[in-house]
Amino acid sequence: MVIKSGDSVLVMSPDEKTYLVTVADGKRMGTHLGDIDLGKAIGLEYGSTIETNLLHTYVLLEPTIEDRMMKVKRFTQIIYPKDAALIVLKTGLGAGMRVIECGSGSGSLTIALANAVAPAGKVYAYDRSEKFMENARKNVENAGFGEFAEFKLREAQEGFDEEGVDAVVLDLPSPWDGIASAARALRGGGRIASLSPTYNQVERCVEVLAEEGFVFLETVEVLVRNIRVSTGKTRPMDRMVSHTGFLTFGRKALKKKSSGN
Amino acid sequence: MVIKSGDSVLVMSPDEKTYLVTVADGKRMGTHLGDIDLGKAIGLEYGSTIETNLLHTYVLLEPTIEDRMMKVKRFTQIIYPKDAALIVLKTGLGAGMRVIECGSGSGSLTIALANAVAPAGKVYAYDRSEKFMENARKNVENAGFGEFAEFKLREAQEGFDEEGVDAVVLDLPSPWDGIASAARALRGGGRIASLSPTYNQVERCVEVLAEEGFVFLETVEVLVRNIRVSTGKTRPMDRMVSHTGFLTFGRKALKKKSSGN
Amino acid sequence: MVIKSGDSVLVMSPDEKTYLVTVADGKRMGTHLGDIDLGKAIGLEYGSTIETNLLHTYVLLEPTIEDRMMKVKRFTQIIYPKDAALIVLKTGLGAGMRVIECGSGSGSLTIALANAVAPAGKVYAYDRSEKFMENARKNVENAGFGEFAEFKLREAQEGFDEEGVDAVVLDLPSPWDGIASAARALRGGGRIASLSPTYNQVERCVEVLAEEGFVFLETVEVLVRNIRVSTGKTRPMDRMVSHTGFLTFGRKALKKKSSGN
Amino acid sequence: MVIKSGDSVLVMSPDEKTYLVTVADGKRMGTHLGDIDLGKAIGLEYGSTIETNLLHTYVLLEPTIEDRMMKVKRFTQIIYPKDAALIVLKTGLGAGMRVIECGSGSGSLTIALANAVAPAGKVYAYDRSEKFMENARKNVENAGFGEFAEFKLREAQEGFDEEGVDAVVLDLPSPWDGIASAARALRGGGRIASLSPTYNQVERCVEVLAEEGFVFLETVEVLVRNIRVSTGKTRPMDRMVSHTGFLTFGRKALKKKSSGN
Repeated sequence: MVIKSGDSVLVMSPDEKTYLVTVADGKRMGTHLGDIDLGKAIGLEYGSTIETNLLHTYVLLEPTIEDRMMKVKRFTQIIYPKDAALIVLKTGLGAGMRVIECGSGSGSLTIALANAVAPAGKVYAYDRSEKFMENARKNVENAGFGEFAEFKLREAQEGFDEEGVDAVVLDLPSPWDGIASAARALRGGGRIASLSPTYNQVERCVEVLAEEGFVFLETVEVLVRNIRVSTGKTRPMDRMVSHTGFLTFGRKALKKKSSGN
Repeated sequence: MVIKSGDSVLVMSPDEKTYLVTVADGKRMGTHLGDIDLGKAIGLEYGSTIETNLLHTYVLLEPTIEDRMMKVKRFTQIIYPKDAALIVLKTGLGAGMRVIECGSGSGSLTIALANAVAPAGKVYAYDRSEKFMENARKNVENAGFGEFAEFKLREAQEGFDEEGVDAVVLDLPSPWDGIASAARALRGGGRIASLSPTYNQVERCVEVLAEEGFVFLETVEVLVRNIRVSTGKTRPMDRMVSHTGFLTFGRKALKKKSSGN
Repeated sequence: MVIKSGDSVLVMSPDEKTYLVTVADGKRMGTHLGDIDLGKAIGLEYGSTIETNLLHTYVLLEPTIEDRMMKVKRFTQIIYPKDAALIVLKTGLGAGMRVIECGSGSGSLTIALANAVAPAGKVYAYDRSEKFMENARKNVENAGFGEFAEFKLREAQEGFDEEGVDAVVLDLPSPWDGIASAARALRGGGRIASLSPTYNQVERCVEVLAEEGFVFLETVEVLVRNIRVSTGKTRPMDRMVSHTGFLTFGRKALKKKSSGN
Repeated sequence: MVIKSGDSVLVMSPDEKTYLVTVADGKRMGTHLGDIDLGKAIGLEYGSTIETNLLHTYVLLEPTIEDRMMKVKRFTQIIYPKDAALIVLKTGLGAGMRVIECGSGSGSLTIALANAVAPAGKVYAYDRSEKFMENARKNVENAGFGEFAEFKLREAQEGFDEEGVDAVVLDLPSPWDGIASAARALRGGGRIASLSPTYNQVERCVEVLAEEGFVFLETVEVLVRNIRVSTGKTRPMDRMVSHTGFLTFGRKALKKKSSGN
């Protein structure tokens, strides 16, 4: 794939630092190892190398969803790829589905959700902060997923506009505020996911989920441990992120029973 | 969404055991709490309840990708959802992409990959065992993703038929056997992922990846810890899966340098 | 060191199963690989091998503190060596110290504490169940630490007989019941440790510790992951114990302030 | 216990930073919250508070073994308390035992070993660097354990002077260099422990241990995760130390067989 003007490129330095930039004719990018003429990237394939004016070699990589998520402009704690990946899988998202995200923050999870439901689905991204919402919208548009996300300014407990959605994801300080709204918006069998940093939030969240008729409840935490691989001296890294949040999942059961068997 | 004859349903017992079944008129399913007339599920919405002849209540859930993966008929160790989720995210898969999977085993990862690239992409699933391949094909078809996967009987070192693919996933006892083939099949900037249980495999895999020009190499392990949430007595579960495999990721850089800056 | 009649020996089978037995003349021990004449062990050194009547070779090992702890007769969940080890270190125990253990259960931790304070210190082991207490006493005597432990039948909130002890360890369903008693029994700067499986217990325990003037509070969990080491195929084990309990530590500050500076 | 001139005190600030100091008449200690007249600590009990000249309150704690270990002057990576605690337990150390430590580095483990074998045992601490050895000696003396440790300048492969020791602990870049020496120094049934950061070291170490006749081999890693306990918002800490080293344990079996059964 050939890089065109206006494309996003993940520029990687010799020591594997990465920078997400938009390529344009005449645009220059300063690095600690000299300047890069980004116009020279136009017409090259992803994976190509480019040199700074000081003759250091950088690689022009194609941004993945993870890169997009990690490079958003952030006013809030973002949802980490490790958590977003499991949320997407466990909510069962696929092309064409409709998902509500409540507490979209800086939009990093919105990007992962939009990618999962494209090219025919939609993410309805709610937040109660206009500043956060506008930042998230820009982040999602910059990532190329603007058409798959709709942003709405709203408190969780006021309810959502959509009905019959496939999944709802809550990232709220008080996730229980959004659970009744989620129950109304979800179709039967639809999935809910909630992300919370504390045990106390999880405990109350699970109580309210059960009260609202959600079933198959499960709470997990995801730990990703990096390994330093080097021939003859391979070992786990010294330090790791040991907590981001607990993830709680459930599915909507319908309250009125079937006419029986 | 209404359940139709021929649909897959995840039937959940009162103690939250689940069974993946195909609904058909006149079909009965035996459980430890009595029989269920699956024909009665037709016309109900997902999330509805159904009773056994002994009046125990089961819930009719819609199978998610995770359910599909965990319920495949298996002749091999399957790839766990926790690992599959991160592989999908880190290889940057999205609708319309083309991905090679080498060592498709029982097809559980194939399902996750196919879901990620649907409705316009394709998974090229290679395995050297005909028995495994035929089982994987059936598992993927049963999961409803048959049109997004193409199965091929082949040893990794013989090379792949495709060119310019977006990603390659290796699940091989000797992953290095597939790396040169992967390098040829990938487009510039394309992603590779390899799953191996031992650190010895990882060490050699990373060596060969570097030799073949892959960059941005990263090896991780994913641990998922379940929390037993119960008001007033919430705690992590006593036991967990502490190892499935190490995941190694990289990206294809192009060997010939750009004409410079 | 030569094995004498009456000594405890850890007998290890060819597949590394271990059995803690007392050696005596004429005593036989049945195994799945034949019988061992334990009288033949008398006069051998620890580390020697012995054969069954079916000519399988067993090793005669000296029991360590860990072996003693794991082989107690148990009516309760025992404290694991991983947790006991950190408790001993963080309470700063050494030869000659005096420590109260409240909730001594089956006595496995009592053994570790007694070993730490021997040959001149003492463990005061409280429990409210006479059955548990008598079992713990026998376990500790069998382990050879009877003279370093004194067992008392008592509820935690009734207070302890001792004053000025160096450390108190609580293993109680309601650890807060023992905290005021511990504060009275401890000398200034003395350490407290509490073991609880749920975060709810930990939260309340820490509140009460702070109210009672304990400082330098710290709560941790210890995870021990086993590695399967085998040349060319070394990897973490598939499954692990992922939770036993949270450990909370603190130190007694004196309430009345010094006359100042 | 009353603080005397020359005693070590762990001085804790209002925000729970700690400083290990020696108390003496007329000695002052500067802090970010004012000066402390350490002479005023003489005659106070541990656990007492003391004020700076700016009227901030500090607590005078008694240093534990862990404090001693963490506060050594270090030229090398020290062994963490989490690892030291398990080493002490699994080598079965107790009062009166004799243990060889090879690769004593800054002496932090030496302190834990000396505490475990006091008041009648001995640690024989070998290192090949005179600078490290002299620093370790001072650290161990300052911690009050000088009489329980003997320091020797020696390469591991040159052998140890002692025979019939209860345990050997290796902390060497090439632990296999010390295994034959350890086998000669240990009595039958004696324990060996080795600490290494890489998988590769562990693999070769285990090979050589097996060759030298060690049995009951076990390799583990210890992870300690801190919990931030706060009423209503309790959660694991964000970051943790995810690797220090792998710990390998074994026991010495005697090579010549018993005369049989």
